[in-house]
This record gives sequence, structure tokens and C-alpha cells, in this order.
Amino acid sequence: MTKPITVLQMTKEDLEGFLAKEFPQAFHAGSGLSIERVDYGDCRVRLAYSDRYIRPGGTISGPTMMMLADFALYVAILSAIGPVALAVTTNFNINFLRRPEQRDILADARIMKLGKRLAVMEVTLYSDGVDEPIAHVTSTYSIPPISAT
Amino acid sequence: MTKPITVLQMTKEDLEGFLAKEFPQAFHAGSGLSIERVDYGDCRVRLAYSDRYIRPGGTISGPTMMMLADFALYVAILSAIGPVALAVTTNFNINFLRRPEQRDILADARIMKLGKRLAVMEVTLYSDGVDEPIAHVTSTYSIPPISAT
Amino acid sequence: MTKPITVLQMTKEDLEGFLAKEFPQAFHAGSGLSIERVDYGDCRVRLAYSDRYIRPGGTISGPTMMMLADFALYVAILSAIGPVALAVTTNFNINFLRRPEQRDILADARIMKLGKRLAVMEVTLYSDGVDEPIAHVTSTYSIPPISAT
Amino acid sequence: MTKPITVLQMTKEDLEGFLAKEFPQAFHAGSGLSIERVDYGDCRVRLAYSDRYIRPGGTISGPTMMMLADFALYVAILSAIGPVALAVTTNFNINFLRRPEQRDILADARIMKLGKRLAVMEVTLYSDGVDEPIAHVTSTYSIPPISAT
Repeated sequence: MTKPITVLQMTKEDLEGFLAKEFPQAFHAGSGLSIERVDYGDCRVRLAYSDRYIRPGGTISGPTMMMLADFALYVAILSAIGPVALAVTTNFNINFLRRPEQRDILADARIMKLGKRLAVMEVTLYSDGVDEPIAHVTSTYSIPPISAT
Repeated sequence: MTKPITVLQMTKEDLEGFLAKEFPQAFHAGSGLSIERVDYGDCRVRLAYSDRYIRPGGTISGPTMMMLADFALYVAILSAIGPVALAVTTNFNINFLRRPEQRDILADARIMKLGKRLAVMEVTLYSDGVDEPIAHVTSTYSIPPISAT
Repeated sequence: MTKPITVLQMTKEDLEGFLAKEFPQAFHAGSGLSIERVDYGDCRVRLAYSDRYIRPGGTISGPTMMMLADFALYVAILSAIGPVALAVTTNFNINFLRRPEQRDILADARIMKLGKRLAVMEVTLYSDGVDEPIAHVTSTYSIPPISAT
Repeated sequence: MTKPITVLQMTKEDLEGFLAKEFPQAFHAGSGLSIERVDYGDCRVRLAYSDRYIRPGGTISGPTMMMLADFALYVAILSAIGPVALAVTTNFNINFLRRPEQRDILADARIMKLGKRLAVMEVTLYSDGVDEPIAHVTSTYSIPPISAT
């Protein structure tokens, strides 16, 4: 069993360029999404607060948090396997822990296991400036065979 | 243990009026969301196809499917407990099964268990006109005590 | 994309023989486990009631239900891909819906999606003779490449 | 909103006594289960290796890992809410990450959120002496109202 190469495959700048070019509908100037930090299989991303995410009672909607976690997962997997592989989410499980504040949301993603065929990852979401997490995600990506990329 | 009253608490028209008033950011003329059918704890909702949901390769994004499933769950729970209760999602688990077509997406939601404190539901997502499902969701809602509503 | 061959790969008798030989620790005369019915990717299995599964208050333990669901999943996947492939569970998600009775438990498993690399399945558990389910499981199996079997 | 009292409600010795008395079928001299450490809402438990957990190929069965994680979750919740409350698991989600060794398994459980009605917890499982985790669990407990205990 060989260990995967644990070298950052895309820097923050690489990722920003790749996402702006390949996912313009999701990642653009007005999306509110930004990458704060990227290491190998480990990143922090941010969603700027916007009124459009709000639900009655002043809470941020569940799908907004899911969208942000999905983005964090994609950045984390790209940082480890690079832009060539067409990785797809197969499972996404979120537990909502606390009511988010009306603030930016931070998402910390990390790879728990990177195999040849599957990656299992974890994301923890926070309201900016608050210690206790607002949501926790585990997710599995299917990684295509190298010959298919 | 008394059985819950299994009577539809909100009709399709009730739900459309409630959602348009309370969730204008999510449910409005341009949202693409519509309610096809509502029975007690059981509904079908639709998301009209739009280019903005597309990802490279022509697939519809994961967060789009999650947003639709979240909407279906909310319609199903409201149909069973009515508009007063402030029910919140606590867990949402999605398995992506097949690549969606570039078509409308239908979501069939149903309540598997409605307790006093928790509801567990299931959603199956389809590309309109295709038999095999594209995604499957299970989700839990926390239902507040009656005195709190 | 070729469709998988939807032909039963192992009959009930094939499965009983295979499991007794390969999994004697799990499937033996005293295990309480039996196969009621097997179709392609779809089966019903049973766990005979025993005092050793009971927890305070007279309920059957969670791990007992998980073990039975795991068994049902394995029978369902074998029925569709046969005994050669070394399929392994990668994800298992269970929602407990209702308190089980002090009776046999039935588990109905079916494949929702059988791909070349992954199978996604669903199991519903019932107390024998009771209509409302006691638990619901979704689970993913990773299927090894044919060359590896 | 008042903060929960974050004081250990049961020591390791309290827990061992309680479990041996209330759950003799699960926690007894021959069960292989032991408690290594308990803090408030945070514990490590161990399962001694035994041949009876083995599956073909020398791996430890999935249900064995689920049973151990379930035990760890119960110890963690008891450490935070004490022995009076009749807490029950409502959701349990496990990702299998790596093939376990033929060794003892350690399970580290911690509470991510303890509310009045729900607790969300996390468990990470390791083969004793190996750094990389073999499985990861998230789980929700429903906590009964105080008046009901």
C-alpha cells in the first residue's frame, strides 16, 4: 500500500483562478464566497453575510449553509488531488447544531481519508467570531480512475 | 399514547400563500419552485430547469438539489403540523444516485415518523420524465413544544 | 453506459450456504438470523427475538437493529453482484423511528442504485406484525473493480 | 438562554457501576468493553480484540465497530446528563475509513452540542497503536424533558 502524495496540488491563487473559470455561476464577485486558507486537504472558506440568506426569525437558511459546506469540500478535495480529476459528491450529511448569527459564516474542511476511489471529509461551520460551531458535515466524494481524467 | 391527528393542516393554496408571505427570499415568482401536490405529510414539489444551476459537464449542482429537497421537506412538515409551529431541520442526509438531466427536477417528500418532538422524513428526487431517482434524502425536524408556538 | 445485468446472482439457498461457510461467526444456527425472501437486489431477512437483545425498559438495543440491517444489506448486494466481489460498506446511516416490540424484527432491503463502483441501498425495519417501521437505514457499498476479485 | 452546567455528572467508577447493573447484557466481564477515560461529555472506551469479531480476510466486522461507537456515545452522554435521563439514539451515521487491524479498538467520543432536547455527538475509532482512524460516527440523542425522568 503506497501512501498518497501529500503535497498541495493547488494554491489559493490556483483555486481562485480555476473556480472563477470553471464555476462562474457559483464562484464570482457577487457570490460572497472566498477562500481564506488552503493547505493539503484542509481549508477555510468564508461566506459574506447577505440579507438574501435570511429566514423569518433572523436565521440563515439551511441550504445556504449546505452550499457553503459544499464549496469548502470542493476546495479541500481539489487541494489534494488537483484540477484534473472529476470528483463528485456521493454522500453529504449535515447536523445543524446552533442558530447562526447574522454574520459571515466560516467553514473549515479537512480530508479524513483519501483513498484511490473515495475521499471522506468533514466540515465544521461557525458564525464569524463565535466559538461554538453552528453545523457539522461529513461527506464522501467518489474519485474517478486516473485513466478517466 | 395518542395518535397524531392525520388531517391535512394546510392545502396547496394555504402553503403557497404562507410561503410567499413568510419566505419571499426562497419562494417567489422567479424562484422556479412550485408545489405540484400536497397530502397529509406527503407532497411533490418541482424546480423549473434553469441554466444557473448547471455545472461543467452539464450537470445540475448538488446544492441545487439540496435546496429543492429542503423545500420539499418544509412543505411536507407544514402539511402535517400547520403554519404555527417553528419546526427546524436538525439533520439532513443526501445520497446522490445518478447524474441529473438538464430538465426540471421533481421531489417527492413523505413523513416516515411524526412524533411530538421529532419528525423523520424521506425525499426522492427525479429528473422530470425519468424513472430512476437522481438523489435520496432522509432528514429530521425538531418540533417545538406546543406551548412554545 | 451499459445497464447492469438484472438477474438474481444467488438464490436463497446459495446465500444460506455461502454465509454459513464464509461468515460462521455471524450466520449460524444460534444466530437467530434467517433469510425470508430474495429477489434481485431486494430481500427480506428476519432476526428471531431473544432476551439477550433487550435493554432496560424492554426495548431492543440499537446495535442489534444495526447488525440486522447490515446483514440485510449484505444479502441484497450479494443477490445482485454474486459471491465473488469483495464489496465493503463505506457509509451506514440509521434513523430510529419507533420503539421496537419484544418480537422478531424483519428487515426489508433494496438497492436504490447499483453502479460500477458504488451501490446505494435502503433498509426498513419492522417489529413482526406491526405496520409502522421501527428504523430506516441508507447505506453505501464500495464495489471493487472486476479485475480485483 | 442559560448555559448547561458543564460538570461531570458520573465518574468512570459511577459509570462502570451503573452500566454493569442496568446493562448486564452489554457490559459485563466477558464483553471486552471497558472505559479508559471520562471527562464532561468526552470519553475514550476500548473493545478488547476477539476472534469472534473477525470476518473473512481478517477484518473486524462493521456491526462490531457500530456496537463500540454506540457504547462510547452512551458513556459520553451519561457523563454530561447523569443516569436519570432516558436518552435515546435517534440518528447514527458511520463512515468506514480504513480496514481495522486485528487489535483492540479505541473509540473517542465527544459532545458537539448539548441542548435541552437534543445532543449531537461525534466518535472517532482507531485500531490501538495506529494513528489513522478506522471509522467516524456522528449521532443524535433525544433527551427527554426533565419532568419525564
